[in-house]
Amino acid sequence: MENEGKYTTIHYQKYLALDELLNAQNLRSEQLGKPAHEEMLFIITHQVYELWFKQIVHELESVIAMFQKDQIDESNLGNAIGRLDRIERIMQLLIDQIGVMESMTPLDFLDFREYLFPASGFQSFQFRAIECLLGLPDMTRITYHNTRYNSVFPDDQKERLAQIYNDGTLFDWVNKWLERTPFLKFGSFDFIKNYKKAVNVMLEKERKAISASEYLSDDEKVKRLEMVGGTDTYFKAILSQENHDQLVKEGKKRLSYQATLAALFINLYRDEPILQLPFQLLTNLIDIDDLMTTWRYRHAQMVLRMLGNKVGTGGSSGHEYLAETARIHKIFADFHTISTLFIPRSALPVLPDEMKKNLSFHFTQNL
Amino acid sequence: MENEGKYTTIHYQKYLALDELLNAQNLRSEQLGKPAHEEMLFIITHQVYELWFKQIVHELESVIAMFQKDQIDESNLGNAIGRLDRIERIMQLLIDQIGVMESMTPLDFLDFREYLFPASGFQSFQFRAIECLLGLPDMTRITYHNTRYNSVFPDDQKERLAQIYNDGTLFDWVNKWLERTPFLKFGSFDFIKNYKKAVNVMLEKERKAISASEYLSDDEKVKRLEMVGGTDTYFKAILSQENHDQLVKEGKKRLSYQATLAALFINLYRDEPILQLPFQLLTNLIDIDDLMTTWRYRHAQMVLRMLGNKVGTGGSSGHEYLAETARIHKIFADFHTISTLFIPRSALPVLPDEMKKNLSFHFTQNL
Amino acid sequence: MENEGKYTTIHYQKYLALDELLNAQNLRSEQLGKPAHEEMLFIITHQVYELWFKQIVHELESVIAMFQKDQIDESNLGNAIGRLDRIERIMQLLIDQIGVMESMTPLDFLDFREYLFPASGFQSFQFRAIECLLGLPDMTRITYHNTRYNSVFPDDQKERLAQIYNDGTLFDWVNKWLERTPFLKFGSFDFIKNYKKAVNVMLEKERKAISASEYLSDDEKVKRLEMVGGTDTYFKAILSQENHDQLVKEGKKRLSYQATLAALFINLYRDEPILQLPFQLLTNLIDIDDLMTTWRYRHAQMVLRMLGNKVGTGGSSGHEYLAETARIHKIFADFHTISTLFIPRSALPVLPDEMKKNLSFHFTQNL
Amino acid sequence: MENEGKYTTIHYQKYLALDELLNAQNLRSEQLGKPAHEEMLFIITHQVYELWFKQIVHELESVIAMFQKDQIDESNLGNAIGRLDRIERIMQLLIDQIGVMESMTPLDFLDFREYLFPASGFQSFQFRAIECLLGLPDMTRITYHNTRYNSVFPDDQKERLAQIYNDGTLFDWVNKWLERTPFLKFGSFDFIKNYKKAVNVMLEKERKAISASEYLSDDEKVKRLEMVGGTDTYFKAILSQENHDQLVKEGKKRLSYQATLAALFINLYRDEPILQLPFQLLTNLIDIDDLMTTWRYRHAQMVLRMLGNKVGTGGSSGHEYLAETARIHKIFADFHTISTLFIPRSALPVLPDEMKKNLSFHFTQNL
Repeated sequence: MENEGKYTTIHYQKYLALDELLNAQNLRSEQLGKPAHEEMLFIITHQVYELWFKQIVHELESVIAMFQKDQIDESNLGNAIGRLDRIERIMQLLIDQIGVMESMTPLDFLDFREYLFPASGFQSFQFRAIECLLGLPDMTRITYHNTRYNSVFPDDQKERLAQIYNDGTLFDWVNKWLERTPFLKFGSFDFIKNYKKAVNVMLEKERKAISASEYLSDDEKVKRLEMVGGTDTYFKAILSQENHDQLVKEGKKRLSYQATLAALFINLYRDEPILQLPFQLLTNLIDIDDLMTTWRYRHAQMVLRMLGNKVGTGGSSGHEYLAETARIHKIFADFHTISTLFIPRSALPVLPDEMKKNLSFHFTQNL
Repeated sequence: MENEGKYTTIHYQKYLALDELLNAQNLRSEQLGKPAHEEMLFIITHQVYELWFKQIVHELESVIAMFQKDQIDESNLGNAIGRLDRIERIMQLLIDQIGVMESMTPLDFLDFREYLFPASGFQSFQFRAIECLLGLPDMTRITYHNTRYNSVFPDDQKERLAQIYNDGTLFDWVNKWLERTPFLKFGSFDFIKNYKKAVNVMLEKERKAISASEYLSDDEKVKRLEMVGGTDTYFKAILSQENHDQLVKEGKKRLSYQATLAALFINLYRDEPILQLPFQLLTNLIDIDDLMTTWRYRHAQMVLRMLGNKVGTGGSSGHEYLAETARIHKIFADFHTISTLFIPRSALPVLPDEMKKNLSFHFTQNL
Repeated sequence: MENEGKYTTIHYQKYLALDELLNAQNLRSEQLGKPAHEEMLFIITHQVYELWFKQIVHELESVIAMFQKDQIDESNLGNAIGRLDRIERIMQLLIDQIGVMESMTPLDFLDFREYLFPASGFQSFQFRAIECLLGLPDMTRITYHNTRYNSVFPDDQKERLAQIYNDGTLFDWVNKWLERTPFLKFGSFDFIKNYKKAVNVMLEKERKAISASEYLSDDEKVKRLEMVGGTDTYFKAILSQENHDQLVKEGKKRLSYQATLAALFINLYRDEPILQLPFQLLTNLIDIDDLMTTWRYRHAQMVLRMLGNKVGTGGSSGHEYLAETARIHKIFADFHTISTLFIPRSALPVLPDEMKKNLSFHFTQNL
Repeated sequence: MENEGKYTTIHYQKYLALDELLNAQNLRSEQLGKPAHEEMLFIITHQVYELWFKQIVHELESVIAMFQKDQIDESNLGNAIGRLDRIERIMQLLIDQIGVMESMTPLDFLDFREYLFPASGFQSFQFRAIECLLGLPDMTRITYHNTRYNSVFPDDQKERLAQIYNDGTLFDWVNKWLERTPFLKFGSFDFIKNYKKAVNVMLEKERKAISASEYLSDDEKVKRLEMVGGTDTYFKAILSQENHDQLVKEGKKRLSYQATLAALFINLYRDEPILQLPFQLLTNLIDIDDLMTTWRYRHAQMVLRMLGNKVGTGGSSGHEYLAETARIHKIFADFHTISTLFIPRSALPVLPDEMKKNLSFHFTQNL
């Protein structure tokens, strides 16, 4: 019977497994006969984090699955964006939630802190899974007391993390999807060639404007012309495939040359109908990276406030470690810095008509 | 010289007109020789509101201009969505900002309240302009001390508000844009006919499932069957054009029958590539309505806290008036209630292949 | 051995009971063979709500326990305030979290909604416990389909809710604590007598100012003088014990006359050192009431968006019911409206020196 | 006539100086004949920042004035806390507001960025005033292109900033207020002597517990005993005045030895009635520091997103400079790290009865 499920009966308490959920707060301080009021907050806050982590993993896995197909189904792009939007909203909650934890004072924390030893947030498997699914590169991870991040997990969890890298992270799959972007060469139109030319025209104009300015002193003119020269060198270096590949080899860039050009193209021509959703998706990745970083940062601040310079529950100097991850553990940095390559719309190469037509669709046109 | 602007020189202080801006806080309590520390907060909070209102007006006017064209340029849809998103972010700030105002206690307010009489937020022209631009219907507005909302303004501002209605509000233009939606009839496929059929099939299945259920008592079966009957009547009424037009005539609905069907179609088939941006836009409108309502509501709460049952600075019983506007002054209610018409994806009419092809585009396809 | 707990060993995964916690998401749609991606969000969001509810209950119970003592230990007042602050931060998260739920579209919800029937948020025991602990009066509760709020619970939970009322709610205990406030009569100083006099002086001054004003027309003067007359009547009615007791009998007020005067006194003289923490506490109660109301309101909005005019999962017309609870289910309304009684500081009765001394302490004074 | 102010008449538009305020958005792109839609957002966002900055300056100046008196009036402590709370709420808005600015895309920014040159946020006088009023030490400021932060201002503004340092910053005055804290020596009770003893007892107990533990291996015992030894050394160093004064001389600490002990005492015994407000105040300072840092950090992120590696409008490599200020420009760091010195409540020295009595007051006691 197809709708059978609807006509059985289920209770809120049972559906949400509240008996299990609300009996899963085992205060160590109570077990040891010295109940500390604030340990409840400590446990519940962490449990809420882990529940949201599970939701984020659920969304990331589903988005990666969409991108894993050779030809991504366009009908999925809106879904992928919706799910990444949701991850952002959850991450914002995770950041705000730090304020709840901070309502516990350092002295209150000392009432039960010693009983937790050596448990540590460093042992959160799901958090590591999120980092891996997003695509935090394994090799650039900061070690912590000379310990690899995954060494605290049992074998099955270690394998699961390795498997994520094997299957390809969100970063990997987006890189591949970008590499398949059409339009970079379209008939006789070669985007990169035209773009380099446009950059040159723009810089030449600037040189002339500086020289002719009646507001600048000669000294200022020299300085400004030097700056334009610097920009010139910069663009030439970045837009060269050879150069780019070298940076990738050195681990200074991760996005491939082809994917970088595609991301640049999408950003520059994002008003074209077909590019609007891809542009949103790239924006999502930057947003998520920023939210991760903000979370790491606020987390580091909280640890400083709680423990001062004391070592963390896992034997770490928590604040420094966390602040350092905020600085280093960026995943989509190459999408951030792509804005370095932008030039004003007025200087952009004009797209051929035939190409513009291919970038359009006509929702409200009468058929 | 084209880039001339760049090589003049401008200072932050001057660019932002900070001399004017930071000298525009004229405390009445100081002028009257009884300086009240908290009046500064009162003025600055309201000034910030007005600055953000100006930004919202700027965005709304630009979005309406996009929709005013007979054939909306698809390349603008992404821009319209981006600007509506921005309005939402600003509105969220406006709501959060109430918390800053609430840091002034009622007793502190009394230190200068009497000097403001009879100035009142009721006299904010820009707030009225926002309501009008969005499309709050003129006739359904709650009057306040039997005074029309626009009677407090000088003639030129009254005319400006009338002009907004004349030129068409965001609601009006979205209604027209929806009416132009193609696809509701496509070749031999008639969406509304198929949809009615699908509703019937679904309800019939439910009736059978109820009758056959071994979990329900006879009494419960009767009750559930009655509920299904109610749903049946409901759908029939709503999906009838005659009925709908009658509701519009009575002022109970504002979205036209044709636009309602289009909105329904977009919601149901939003996964189709071409419908993804239109779906986002409809969601924006609901979000904005909710944010406006939340703002009205929080505003009403704040006034209650500040003044208790006292009359407001404009001679009004502020709390009741504001709470009532939160309840009544909805603009996009017809977009909210459209979800009443949804049926599960599994029961939806399948779109013809040729039609699905027309709803697609192929971003990553090799050309 | 006293510090033994510290030198055993415990793991994050075990301490937080993550095995139980992360296996408590049983998707009905999966069990029925029709997995719906979005059901995970639905479950996890509700589970997070319930975890936070547990924390709120934990804090409320501890605060009530502090107030239950005949003579509240002053050293607890700061703690009580800290815990009420924390409840506010959590409630703000609960409100923001609605935005995460709203990232699920109504159509997505329909993918699994039928499987949940008849489970309903109406069945959340902990939410009812919070309402009771705060002191939502039993009799004024809106019924729902003619069903009392507690009828959906098993006997032990019903008894627990009854027990909360028996033991006294936060409202009850704060009322008692206020009634014990000293200072309302101090030596020959009688606060209420002096306050009535001050109100009269203030109103008389206003009458004179109106009559003498050169800015007001005669018509306006008549209107203003009528308003002053109304205020006069109002204060007289409110400051009469007989009148107040009658309102309490009719259920229009809940705070006793004595407690109301104490709350008024604390608000008016909150700058006195000893009254600063009591004033914070009263503010906390208002804040919590506002947050509860905002939460109810946003919840109602979300249900409207999800279901339109459809009946809720518990067979209710959810939106209307929830919106109505937002309007009616106020707990600390008498603390809100107390601001109606305020008069400007400049008109306040001056406290006798001896009394001011008793309201002070001297933290930085050299001993 | 005393209440005259009330019976004149004033209009919202005039009171808020809306004519000046809403005409202060002068788009450079419009003046240069190339209107850029997004410049409005850029201007308004910055103007809102400056209005809030004015409010923060207003509050900071008033709080400093309270602390400047030789004997701070205790009735002001609650007010000071209320105003610092308000500053925190405003700062939270300033952080959230970055999200509004980020709704402008980097390419949109390029439409008018060149016209702003060389104006820069580095030229915001009010922001510098806030840093100075809080007490950011002049000498530790990071320079920027080898330019001192105040070199961009005209002489009168330079003098105003110097004057702030001369008059004493919030940090300076709180330091002095803490130094005046009584209770550190009370009769025969010497807090610091007792505290050192308590630390010793606690560490000795830990050593024994480690040695006796049956859960730890011999290797682990050695490691743990070493850690206890480290803590011992740490406390000894910190609690020595000589050592502390040396750190102050080297610029590694700013809070004086005496003030540090007082802050420690307030944190440890914050439950005592008289210490509750001082404890709140110290918490405010930490919160404000964290919010400033978070703002700097989010600002740095936004600049990275907007400009990539490009130099800022003031000729700076904005992102690196801002990120560095987030790392270095801490004002109340010594209050953060004080938690390093905490020991659990169970190990705290017990206060003599006579002293506890002096730390109390009796609000609800019958007189």
